[in-house]
Formats: sequence, C-alpha cells, structure tokens
Amino acid sequence: MTDILADRMTRLREKMRATGTGLVALGPGSHMQWLAGFHPHPDERPALLLVAQDNAALLMPALNAEASKLATDMPMFVWADADGPDAALADALRAVFPTPSGRVVLDETMRTDFALLLLDALPTLARAFTDDTVGVLRASKDDGEYRKLKASAQLNDAAMQAAWAALRTGMTETEVADVVRTYFTERGGRAEFTIIGASENGAHPHHATGGRVLKAGDAVVMDIGGRLDGYPSDMTRMAIIGEPPAGYAEVHAIVERAVQAALAAARPGARAKDVDRAAREVIAAAGYGEFFVHRTGHGLGIDIHEPPYITASSETVLAEGMVFSIEPGIYLPGRFGIRLEDIVILRRDRAEILSSLPRDAFRARG
Amino acid sequence: MTDILADRMTRLREKMRATGTGLVALGPGSHMQWLAGFHPHPDERPALLLVAQDNAALLMPALNAEASKLATDMPMFVWADADGPDAALADALRAVFPTPSGRVVLDETMRTDFALLLLDALPTLARAFTDDTVGVLRASKDDGEYRKLKASAQLNDAAMQAAWAALRTGMTETEVADVVRTYFTERGGRAEFTIIGASENGAHPHHATGGRVLKAGDAVVMDIGGRLDGYPSDMTRMAIIGEPPAGYAEVHAIVERAVQAALAAARPGARAKDVDRAAREVIAAAGYGEFFVHRTGHGLGIDIHEPPYITASSETVLAEGMVFSIEPGIYLPGRFGIRLEDIVILRRDRAEILSSLPRDAFRARG
Repeated sequence: MTDILADRMTRLREKMRATGTGLVALGPGSHMQWLAGFHPHPDERPALLLVAQDNAALLMPALNAEASKLATDMPMFVWADADGPDAALADALRAVFPTPSGRVVLDETMRTDFALLLLDALPTLARAFTDDTVGVLRASKDDGEYRKLKASAQLNDAAMQAAWAALRTGMTETEVADVVRTYFTERGGRAEFTIIGASENGAHPHHATGGRVLKAGDAVVMDIGGRLDGYPSDMTRMAIIGEPPAGYAEVHAIVERAVQAALAAARPGARAKDVDRAAREVIAAAGYGEFFVHRTGHGLGIDIHEPPYITASSETVLAEGMVFSIEPGIYLPGRFGIRLEDIVILRRDRAEILSSLPRDAFRARG
Repeated sequence: MTDILADRMTRLREKMRATGTGLVALGPGSHMQWLAGFHPHPDERPALLLVAQDNAALLMPALNAEASKLATDMPMFVWADADGPDAALADALRAVFPTPSGRVVLDETMRTDFALLLLDALPTLARAFTDDTVGVLRASKDDGEYRKLKASAQLNDAAMQAAWAALRTGMTETEVADVVRTYFTERGGRAEFTIIGASENGAHPHHATGGRVLKAGDAVVMDIGGRLDGYPSDMTRMAIIGEPPAGYAEVHAIVERAVQAALAAARPGARAKDVDRAAREVIAAAGYGEFFVHRTGHGLGIDIHEPPYITASSETVLAEGMVFSIEPGIYLPGRFGIRLEDIVILRRDRAEILSSLPRDAFRARG
C-alpha cells in the first residue's frame, strides 16, 4: 500500500470513529479506486471492499482475483461462479467485522444487489451512505490530485479551442463533438461527454448531441469533458455562428455575472447553498429565475459528479481543497440556452479556476 | 408507445400477476431501455420507472424532463435540484400504486441510493429482483433484436479479421486493441471491450490489455466486443504468432470439444446448469478441470452480461429465443490461456451460432 493510500485509510478510520461507523462497504467504482488504488472490473458478480476499524478485506469473484492481487495486498475472500458469493461474504465478515456494531456505510453508487446482499447479512445495523466518511474525504483534493485535475483542464481548454477552430455553418452537432473526441484521443486522453447544443437544442441542459446542422445566427452550448491520467475535466463555453440571436448579449452578461457572484461566494467556511444562492439571485434579479432549472454545480474528482453538490438546499460546509463546478445557465425554450461553467479549487482565501480560457462567447465566422 | 413496447408492457404485467408482484421499479439503464424504449442520462439524480398493474409513471429529475418527454408519453413526476426527489416520489407512488400490496421488484443493477429511497417509502413490502419478471422476458429475444444482434456479430467477425491481419511481432497488446477499436468506429459501431492477452497474460481471464509486446511463440487470447445500433457483440478467438507454445494444440482441441458439447446440450427445455456441465465434464475428463475457473456463459442482449447465466448451479430453464455465450476456457498460470467463445440463439431444435468465423486458432506469420 502506498503512503497516500495508507494515509487515506487512516483518515477514513478517524471519520468512522467520529461518526459511529462500524463498517464501510464499497463496490467496484470510484470510492474503491480512491481508497484502494484500484477496483476490479465491475459487472454483475458481487465484489466489495469491507473496511472496519481494525481490519479490511475484499470480497472478490475468482475471475478477477489474480489481476486484483497484482494491484493490492489486502486479504481477499474469493468466490467461484459455481458457488456464488454467500459463503465467501460470511467468511469475510467474520474476519473483518466479528462483532457487528455501529453504522454500516454503503457505497451509494454500487449495484442494488451488492448492497442488499450485505444488508441481508447484517440486518440489525443502521445504514448510511458515504457522505460523512469517504465522501467528505474525497471532496478535498491532495496535491497529486490537483495536478492531475489541472492537466486535465488544460487539455480540455485545448480541445475547446480545436472545436472552435473547426466551427462552420453546415456542420452537424455530432461532427463538432467528433473534433473534440479525436482531439482528446490523439493527446492520450479520452472524451467523457460532448454536449453540443445549437440554439433551441441548447435550451435543453442535457441535450443529446445529434444531426442538427449549424447555421448562421446559432448560439451553441459546448459542454465538454475528458479524462487524462485518471482525472476528468468539465467545462462549458458558448459559441456564436455569425451574428448572435436577438437578446443573446444581455442573457450572456447575466450568466457571466452569476458566475462571478458564485466565485466570490465560494470560500472555505461558506455553505454550498450560499454559493448556489449567489448565482441564483443574480439570475432571479434579472427576471430569468424560472429559466435557471438546475443546481449551480457539482464536485469533480475521480468522478465527474461527486460531492460537494452546490444546490439551493445543501448545508455542506465548503473546505480548502474542495473542487467543484460553477455553472449557472439560462434556458429559453425554443430559442437558445446559455451556460458558462468553470471548475474551481478552493484555496484559503479564494476560488482558483482551473481553466485558462475566458468565458466570452467565441465568435465563429459562419 | 410503439407496438413492441406495448406488447412488452402487457407481457410484464402478466408476469407480475403470476409472481404476486405489485410494483416494478427500474433505474436508468437497460431494463428501462427495454421496457420504455429509452432511459434518461444516468447520474446521481434519482430517476425511476414505476410500473404497477394499472398504471405506470416516471420519477424524473427536471434536468432530464424535456428530453425524456421527446422519448415517451408516460406520466412524469418531475423534481428540481433545489427540492430533492422525496415529494415527487411520494406523488408518483400515490398515483401509480395507491394501495401497496404484493412484492416490490427492484432493478438489481440500479444505484443503491435509488433502491433504498424506494424501499424506505414502501417499508413493509417483500422485495425481489427482476429475475422472474423483466429478466426472464428480456432473455428471449424478438425478431428485431435477433437481427440487431446478428448484424453486431457480423461486424465483430470483421473486426476480429482486421486484428488478425494486423498481428505482427513487436506490436503491443494495446496496439492490437486499437486496431479493433478503430475498425468498429469507422463502421458506425463502437468497441465495448478488447481483451488482448498474450501467452502468460491470457492465463488471466479478465486480463487488462497493456504494453506486453507480441513475440514469436505467443498464444494470444482475443476477446472483443462492440456495439452496433444499440446491440452488442462478444466473441473470443485465439491467435498464434509463429509456432505455438508447447502443448497448445492439445489444449485448444479440448476447449473446442467443450464448446461442441455445450452447443449440443443447449436446447429449449434444458437447464442452464446442464449446458455448463456439458462443457465442464469434457475439460475435467481431460484432466484440466481446475483450470476452467469461470462459468460457461452469460446472456447477451441490450447488456453484454444479462440473464440467462450459464453456471454450474443455475436451474434456469432455457427457452426458444434465448441468446447467450458459450465460452469455456483453460488457463495455465505462467504459460497461456485458451478461451473460445460464441454467441448462440436457441431455436426450437438447435443452438444457432451468430458468428460465421471458425474457432480454429489464427496463425500469424510473426
């Protein structure tokens, strides 16, 4: 186990003591990746990392045992397809958690059948999700994670500029997305998502990029994210083909002011809802409140969406080292949408933006 | 709703009656795709399709509501980030399932937090997974699904041949995988996985393709799968660089006999474990039983792994139209592994193989 992983395990056990948690159970996903430095191939075969105060072990399908042993020296309770996981899980629990007490913390992202297998084996214990244990620890990034997120953001900046350079009337949204995808791939990364939404399509925040042809007068939402060296990026910018649609400049300026208000509110000690409110009040005061239909942001780390979530109701206290998006938007049905998104890391006295690209709309000649 | 989707809903409600199921709850994934013809973007925001005997509705995050309304005319209970899903879920349950009774069937693949949100709202009902409702219905494919799986298998055959044509000593496993990936992409599909395992790496069934350089005398496991028009492929073949390693031909012949025995056992009315046993007995009789470390196969449909699972303990009765893999293997640690995999669809009196490629090892010059 590396020093970083040993330190994470120590800090997790402190959180477990502080929260009355007897057992933490993680599935093959990003929580396990963060804590163990790897996770086995995720499929329908139950695999769990079980962490108690004094012991930890893996429940592992035989098919993935050899490869997993190359990645970790944790004890492994291996089960074969012919037998199923029940006996191996019982053995693992006896070894790791011989005297069940306290809360069971479940990886909220894991498959339901994995979680119920465990809950059925520990039917009397209270359950919780990872918010106040693994979740809060993952939210504050260490220096190594910061460097990877910064490099990933820089690649995203370059991919956005490559897409801007390619923008022409007559291209489809999908063709713009292909430019982004190819750019990431050719530089050793990969695209994770590419939302390209022209005018009326951009008014759907989660528009599925498609065959819509770009034409003069389009306002294009470009929300792209990639992954480099295990860590993702996520950024939204706007592009205009030729002349902007009526009313565009005013709405863009409102969204920009909302971003700036959220940036100013994003400080260690603030609550997540304070940051959301800062952005939301700007948009509401300008008369567009009903058209800002989503939260202001989400954390970003191994996952593209992870705590802290920047919502109107979140009491989460922001802390130094937390990384999250600030991405207010205004969506005018049938006309266009405008979203501007940056990823920030909280420093002692400010929010540092990872991207170096301005948030002005890119003007393509068309 | 199309005729196909209406028919699936009717057949699901027959299964619900037959199994005493009051409510089926599906998350954004392949079960929902099969039943509703779409699913919203899966993320941490709870989204559920709730089906009772007389009503059905969707719990939907606001962010995905507009796009989902383009895909379905089912009633939608929409919740905003600022409010969270609890009230919308309560409204949806009152509308769809006003008098809770019978089992609640949970999508076993959905996130744990989605399932527990629902179970906490219906704490007294018995729960089950989809095995005897959605799962068994999805296992038997209709003609449209067969045509898509066949087309996907044909593309996989061509991608395998492209990889064979490229094989040279000095290439890495990753470079072979890149040939496969590019081939799928250029023909309108995409690669889902590419396990390329040279000699000792092939002895790990789930080897992570890497920088191992191919050399003369290598036996290479090539397990590749793609997706075309929503439906996947999955096939494993062997390639030899130059002369095969000592003992190769004998072991390949044993695995081939195991495939043939499983093919002969795969008939409507047989149990899944009968097919597994047919393959396993051939390998055990040849003295290699301990080196066949996984089940004989898995279903294939919208998912690459889905019911029926062909395991030593599965009592599932196979039926006409079921599609699954037959993929016995022998893994000799430190030396090489041999797996041969075909996807079959059960016809009235036989198992039809979707691929047209022989299972002989491809001989690359090296």
